[in-house]
Amino acid sequence: MRKYFFKEPGEIREYLLASLGKIKPSIVLKNSLIIDVCSGDIYSGNVVIYKDRIVGVCSGHVKAEVEIDVKEKYLAPGFMDAHIHIESTLLTPPELSKILLPHGVTSIFADPHELANVLGVKSMRLLLKMTKNIPLRVFIEVPSRVPTAPGLETTGAQLDVRNVKRLLKVPYTVSLGELNYQNVLYGGYEYLRKIIAADECGLIVNGHMAGLRGSMLDAMIAAGLVDDHECISCEEAIERIRKGCAVMVREGSTERNLEDVIKAANKIKDTRMFLMCTDDKHPDDIIAEGHIDFNIRKAIELGIDPVKAIQMATLNIAQHFGLECYVGSIAPLRKADIVVLDDLEKIRVSEVIFDGKLAYSKGKLLWSIGKARTPKWALRTVRISQELQPRDLIITVGKQYTKALVRVMRIIENQIVVKEERAWLSVEGGIVKADEGRDILHIAVVERHKGLRNIGKAFVRGFNIKNGAIGSTVAHDHHNVVVVGDNADDMFLAVKGLERMGGGFIVTSKHRVLAKLPLPIAGLISTEKASTVVEKIHEVNKAAQSLGCTLKKPFMQLSFITLPTVPELGLTDKGLIDSRRYKVISPIIILT
Amino acid sequence: MRKYFFKEPGEIREYLLASLGKIKPSIVLKNSLIIDVCSGDIYSGNVVIYKDRIVGVCSGHVKAEVEIDVKEKYLAPGFMDAHIHIESTLLTPPELSKILLPHGVTSIFADPHELANVLGVKSMRLLLKMTKNIPLRVFIEVPSRVPTAPGLETTGAQLDVRNVKRLLKVPYTVSLGELNYQNVLYGGYEYLRKIIAADECGLIVNGHMAGLRGSMLDAMIAAGLVDDHECISCEEAIERIRKGCAVMVREGSTERNLEDVIKAANKIKDTRMFLMCTDDKHPDDIIAEGHIDFNIRKAIELGIDPVKAIQMATLNIAQHFGLECYVGSIAPLRKADIVVLDDLEKIRVSEVIFDGKLAYSKGKLLWSIGKARTPKWALRTVRISQELQPRDLIITVGKQYTKALVRVMRIIENQIVVKEERAWLSVEGGIVKADEGRDILHIAVVERHKGLRNIGKAFVRGFNIKNGAIGSTVAHDHHNVVVVGDNADDMFLAVKGLERMGGGFIVTSKHRVLAKLPLPIAGLISTEKASTVVEKIHEVNKAAQSLGCTLKKPFMQLSFITLPTVPELGLTDKGLIDSRRYKVISPIIILT
Repeated sequence: MRKYFFKEPGEIREYLLASLGKIKPSIVLKNSLIIDVCSGDIYSGNVVIYKDRIVGVCSGHVKAEVEIDVKEKYLAPGFMDAHIHIESTLLTPPELSKILLPHGVTSIFADPHELANVLGVKSMRLLLKMTKNIPLRVFIEVPSRVPTAPGLETTGAQLDVRNVKRLLKVPYTVSLGELNYQNVLYGGYEYLRKIIAADECGLIVNGHMAGLRGSMLDAMIAAGLVDDHECISCEEAIERIRKGCAVMVREGSTERNLEDVIKAANKIKDTRMFLMCTDDKHPDDIIAEGHIDFNIRKAIELGIDPVKAIQMATLNIAQHFGLECYVGSIAPLRKADIVVLDDLEKIRVSEVIFDGKLAYSKGKLLWSIGKARTPKWALRTVRISQELQPRDLIITVGKQYTKALVRVMRIIENQIVVKEERAWLSVEGGIVKADEGRDILHIAVVERHKGLRNIGKAFVRGFNIKNGAIGSTVAHDHHNVVVVGDNADDMFLAVKGLERMGGGFIVTSKHRVLAKLPLPIAGLISTEKASTVVEKIHEVNKAAQSLGCTLKKPFMQLSFITLPTVPELGLTDKGLIDSRRYKVISPIIILT
Repeated sequence: MRKYFFKEPGEIREYLLASLGKIKPSIVLKNSLIIDVCSGDIYSGNVVIYKDRIVGVCSGHVKAEVEIDVKEKYLAPGFMDAHIHIESTLLTPPELSKILLPHGVTSIFADPHELANVLGVKSMRLLLKMTKNIPLRVFIEVPSRVPTAPGLETTGAQLDVRNVKRLLKVPYTVSLGELNYQNVLYGGYEYLRKIIAADECGLIVNGHMAGLRGSMLDAMIAAGLVDDHECISCEEAIERIRKGCAVMVREGSTERNLEDVIKAANKIKDTRMFLMCTDDKHPDDIIAEGHIDFNIRKAIELGIDPVKAIQMATLNIAQHFGLECYVGSIAPLRKADIVVLDDLEKIRVSEVIFDGKLAYSKGKLLWSIGKARTPKWALRTVRISQELQPRDLIITVGKQYTKALVRVMRIIENQIVVKEERAWLSVEGGIVKADEGRDILHIAVVERHKGLRNIGKAFVRGFNIKNGAIGSTVAHDHHNVVVVGDNADDMFLAVKGLERMGGGFIVTSKHRVLAKLPLPIAGLISTEKASTVVEKIHEVNKAAQSLGCTLKKPFMQLSFITLPTVPELGLTDKGLIDSRRYKVISPIIILT
């Protein structure tokens, strides 16, 4: 990976002549209180910018094209998110940048894992296209696990070692994305070869080390996994840092680990290995409470020195990824990504300079952000077999039976684990019936990438839906169509509705579509602006609730139930998965 | 540059199985007090090593092939030197490693600038050959200025952009070596292209920014120079760090900047940008007082927290060069380079583990270090024109003159600057005579790489030699033969003696060689062991003093007088150089 990202010698010459005042600098930020993440201090001075980079910091007078008097406000380097899945925001990068900029976020380190499961290598091309000319730097963590569970799910694409090698060479790629111990330990040489490929490119490997302690943690670090965003306690954090593993302090929509993890920062002397991240944060939460600024604010509230908290969102991240000469501090050579803060307690963002231009000021976006240009191939990814019938979505057996003992997928609100329960259901006319009274509903996963007739079926408890169905194409990590309902017809309508709109969220009842949120880009991302998306999320949630659903975020819950890798059960297009034993099992135990 | 330096997937698998105890680890260091440079703390635990790497740190019991009870001693990561010229030690890497290991130094970041001026691209091959199988990691800072003063000196080789590009791709290359402002500002695109080449390889550029402040410093950092080892004061250090430029805290043989520079570390909160280095340290000083351990010790004496001081010699350096996953901390994945310390005040080294093997223990070297294998082409680099006559070494004029006003190069003890003085000398038989009474001696630089008849001549003051001459092939940066004396015959004998022994230091008097130190490798490095070299240094120094010389280190002084880049005068084979105006000038001003 490049350190400076210079283009050609003439460019360097321009910068240095601007430093010397022999070319007029573009902007000088006068009378600023510079938050110096390099020294850990704050000092007053002027910041000199030429084009896209900082070319000087000084106390003396400097002439520039534009002079901005910061009036003793604080300047921080643009905030960074060390690990984010853009797909969780449901927004295109341009729309995402619009809601991140007011929060001072100028760089994100994104693992486009969901897009890659649908679009494969092409997802990177799409991302590069969509991130052009927006006021947000998108550094790429190349997805390491596509598919996550080979053999147990059908995905739209696979990233083998050869593909991963190609992607690791794409500019602004910074790492091999979150590997977990299952892949490293049991994935044969496949994943170890991906580690080698990253190493050969001079890139690190991100870890996904939920719950690991002791020698298992040692083993993963020894294999090259040098950070973890799944850390949930002070003790875990201290163990990781002692073992040379950076701790990504996560504060997302559901996983909120900052309060516990940041305690570790108050217990050790050096905090350079703490990095702020959100992982998965929904657009409504970003708008309501903020993004990385929220992490910083919360850390300060919990007793962390403001400069240290800001280091965790700037220099520490840049250093971890080897980008400290390019971003992450207010110093010559670095990109002019600067946040003007009103204060150091609430971290109120008053202005944001991105790439040397004033991009946000007092509530106003000053950067002209176009719509994402999405190629057609990325918009047509939901292909349902034309032979699909409503009856295919529910479990049928021989007409001679009257009762069935079945496995029920029991969801738990705000958790991604699915427990295994058992229940007796009645069988009528060869159909194993749902039982709304006990909240035992049909669930089906329909292959949607290639139009295959793969359908995984089971029963589920926790959704409490009556006279209808809800469906989604956001279904981790394979992102097939998942649908839950009490009757086959509404479930079928949901599947067909999702196909028609190219993917998204849908609620159906009594042969009618009650509400929908189209996510036509790969069936994962909206083409609309953030406020519209947030509005429609409320609509589909409300519609689901009108059917009796009591979950706060039914579609998020729906998206995790399909995971074949999380205990105890998952559902893919290949069937019901026992994730403890990593194999397909039957939803039916006994028929009588 | 690679991050982990893994060889192949099977290797990773072995390490992780060793972490898990499924393969028996090689060594466990029990009951240690681990200096954790990642958290800035010290904690007690056991360190598990498999082959060359650390595979675990833990508190529980671990079985291994070898169990070493550290008995509550401190473990530090192997010490590093962020910037060193091996040539200044006059030793081959194997011999150097023998005297560094007892001081806990396991990694050096070397700029083989002198070797490259003599041998060019081949110097890297030589270095790689000489550093094989020694208990010292040698990371390469690729020389950026060969020659330093194009057109003003003849060197043995040139490293153009194409050559530099090749060298930047050599394994274990970590940067483009010390660039200075003259090259960046006035060197056209040549040096900017070298910066781009480093950038393309993902490598940083080291700076050489003696005395720079304000906008000139900004300009150099803006051009990509991200560290400085020429920093000499607290104020300079703070300015550099605020500007995102790492400060290499230098404590060499003559340049002793630690005491002043380290004050800055007591004034700012975050010290991650301080890196320890020696730059140029002679073998006698290494043996007498230590090396990087000396820097650490002195820093602690001056009030720096011991863990912070050790970070400056380990993790900070590793991070600066992007090697923190490979070396610099006691953590899984990292190379098992570990120093066992008796205490944290005196930094007394009791044991050193290098590459997973006990290499040094209580005064004994346990690593079998062979002699450097030097190819013949590296041993035959002194070629003097066969037509050279004694008379060629002194300044001759028309026989009609009786007096000359000349420029005299005035040296100042322990400084590399040379002042310009003027003096009237008598002319006899066409020869401008030296005047020992006033300590005005002949000085000549004879081209020695290609056997040309280029001879630069002048007068010099400060050596105080009578009835003899001293000569050397260590003459920065072109490393031609430099000789000072009061008569042509002894000067000639010195030149011929140097040719015969393939370079080195020599003292002649009254047609006899009084003492010599052969440096046959490129005319810069001895093939002998450190103690012999130190002995012979004393011999040549004593011999020079016997001729009246009062300088403590006459050969070091001799080696700097030839620099065409340092104010005010320098002497090369092209003649007397006015380094302020960067041109050849005549040593004679007026003849009467």
